[in-house]
Amino acid sequence: MKSLRTVLLRLQTACSYTKQSFTQQRHRKLLAWTCGTVSIGVAGVSIICYHSNNNRVFAYSGRKLDTSKWMSEPITERSLLEERSSEMKYKMEAMIMRIQAEVCRRLEEVDGDQKFFVDRWTRKEGGGGITCVMKDGLVFEKAGVNISVVHGNLPPAAVAQMRARGRAMEGKTLPFFATGVSCVIHPRNPYVPAIHFNYRYFEVVDETGKVHWWFGGGTDLTPIYLDQKDAVHFHQTLKAACDKHSKEFYPKFKKWCDEYFYLPHRGETRGIGGIFFDDLDKEPQSDCYNFVESCADAVLPSYIPIVQKHKNDGYSHRERKWQLLRRGRYVEFNLIYDRGTKFGLQTPGARYESILMSLPNTANWEYRNEPAPNSAEEEIVKVLKQPRDWV
Amino acid sequence: MKSLRTVLLRLQTACSYTKQSFTQQRHRKLLAWTCGTVSIGVAGVSIICYHSNNNRVFAYSGRKLDTSKWMSEPITERSLLEERSSEMKYKMEAMIMRIQAEVCRRLEEVDGDQKFFVDRWTRKEGGGGITCVMKDGLVFEKAGVNISVVHGNLPPAAVAQMRARGRAMEGKTLPFFATGVSCVIHPRNPYVPAIHFNYRYFEVVDETGKVHWWFGGGTDLTPIYLDQKDAVHFHQTLKAACDKHSKEFYPKFKKWCDEYFYLPHRGETRGIGGIFFDDLDKEPQSDCYNFVESCADAVLPSYIPIVQKHKNDGYSHRERKWQLLRRGRYVEFNLIYDRGTKFGLQTPGARYESILMSLPNTANWEYRNEPAPNSAEEEIVKVLKQPRDWV
Repeated sequence: MKSLRTVLLRLQTACSYTKQSFTQQRHRKLLAWTCGTVSIGVAGVSIICYHSNNNRVFAYSGRKLDTSKWMSEPITERSLLEERSSEMKYKMEAMIMRIQAEVCRRLEEVDGDQKFFVDRWTRKEGGGGITCVMKDGLVFEKAGVNISVVHGNLPPAAVAQMRARGRAMEGKTLPFFATGVSCVIHPRNPYVPAIHFNYRYFEVVDETGKVHWWFGGGTDLTPIYLDQKDAVHFHQTLKAACDKHSKEFYPKFKKWCDEYFYLPHRGETRGIGGIFFDDLDKEPQSDCYNFVESCADAVLPSYIPIVQKHKNDGYSHRERKWQLLRRGRYVEFNLIYDRGTKFGLQTPGARYESILMSLPNTANWEYRNEPAPNSAEEEIVKVLKQPRDWV
Repeated sequence: MKSLRTVLLRLQTACSYTKQSFTQQRHRKLLAWTCGTVSIGVAGVSIICYHSNNNRVFAYSGRKLDTSKWMSEPITERSLLEERSSEMKYKMEAMIMRIQAEVCRRLEEVDGDQKFFVDRWTRKEGGGGITCVMKDGLVFEKAGVNISVVHGNLPPAAVAQMRARGRAMEGKTLPFFATGVSCVIHPRNPYVPAIHFNYRYFEVVDETGKVHWWFGGGTDLTPIYLDQKDAVHFHQTLKAACDKHSKEFYPKFKKWCDEYFYLPHRGETRGIGGIFFDDLDKEPQSDCYNFVESCADAVLPSYIPIVQKHKNDGYSHRERKWQLLRRGRYVEFNLIYDRGTKFGLQTPGARYESILMSLPNTANWEYRNEPAPNSAEEEIVKVLKQPRDWV
């Protein structure tokens, strides 16, 4: 019993689960014992302990992570990510490290010329991030893949904003933890669409000690010219990722995406949409996580075939000019409406360089540019003014 | 007496003044009579009538306006602007028409290549504007001089915002009138600074029928590289315009300008400032107007000598690159922080093309661009991080 006590002491520092989630997990375990107020489950290399007197679950997981391709040392110590991989914040961090690496390696391969510049940074208020930027590539004019793992205290304005969104949280300044991966790619060829994705996990502890957690994210495409087959392929891939988890997800999150990436002053969406969701907080937490992971894993298959198809298309100054004007709209959306950018820039000690990484390297504006009737430019604008169903 | 009654009936439609302003104006009149509850003053070609029973003043002014150089027909009928030139809203409109014309003509002269494209537009909710745009000039890459004369009902959000700024206004949706001139110039040569100015007049009628009025405005300079002599000349010219009206204006409005044109996320001002003010509403109204007119008249003398001095300076790709990055900051300020842009885009039926005319035709962003130590680029950044007193 002494060694068990040692294990338990070590586990005490770990994060808490509810009894319910333990029970759900236990069903999948090979072995489980109950002894007085303590239950212990063993599954593979994981050990999970449940204390019935305080309704807490501690977990130890010895899952070995394949970290060989990561772009840099993670923000949280590698050993911690392995030992506590069953705690959501560590599990999520490990997942986004993997996604960042897979996306960056694949983009480098497709580009064939430039490599990502890797910039690991820390934040004096707590946490940090890894910003990977490629510029002036043959295929990608600018691509940024950023992960961040930050914690600290939410400023009152942010708490108020969350309350306004319907979160019943007590307290003014609350401890929070946020981690996510975010990526924007601005290709050089006007026939290759820009893409953006972002998957994130949030925890806030309110005054009563209650942990509020939720996931958010999405993937959306911004073509300069419309290729209907590409649009169908893109949406179809995202829908397949959603459908594995719930048939309700794709229609709901597709609509949310069209509504979110919208520029009211122009009456246009930013692009042809995709999926967008926030406040995903339905127990069991592991189901939410699995859905988010599926979405993140769908990014490359949804996008890379489109890049390969068009990266060598011929184009003239006309297409380039239109691309730069469309990028101006992209800048307008991100700076005026995007909640992530606003929230980011308001956060004390915000690293504006990582937040503004989403902006293209170059963007144009022109007074009253109006596409000619029946032109390819007008074709895409029509879709932006009236979003379509693609699948 | 019959002809006098005809005149009075005609005047009844005109805007009201307070008794005080009539008394002040009367001192400058050649003739004034009082007969029962009506006083009449005559000055030059103006006739002013004061009704003591309802404390209202009506004015008829036959002032002939020199409209020969205006860029287009005004938004308000020309005859109305002449007949009612002593009412502030018409007086202001006539003044900004003159300023727009003078600025455009002078810029065309200096550019020597391109002319302004004149776009007169109307707004279905009431009023309209005249947007003048020059692009791809030899000297001016993009220049916009816009006037607008709009009226309608302020949406509740705008009323709430004004109340938050300290305006004790009753009511939710209030009739308003707003007119102003606004200009942004992005020159081609990186040694010629960008300039912005805006002078505006606002009236809101609250639920009790009270007319709230105020002026706002400012002029500020955004050099890409620092030329200390230019900075001194620019600020000195603005100071002289202010000092004619009050010695308190320049120091107060210079500070306000540095505070207003500030990007908190970068800890930088947009440029080297100038003057900025809002809520100028101290009686007599004519003093406020005279001050605003002096400021508007100071724009060309503050700027054109700087343009002439540098428009033919040699420069290389390095300076151009820096200019485009600085323009990126300009876009950030305008889209994230500028109150005029935000207010404008929120106004129902807003003409976004005129509001976003302030954006440069092209702007760049680069991840972590940091000026080399002791470079000319670092010199200007230091001033932006720590605003100086120039006069």
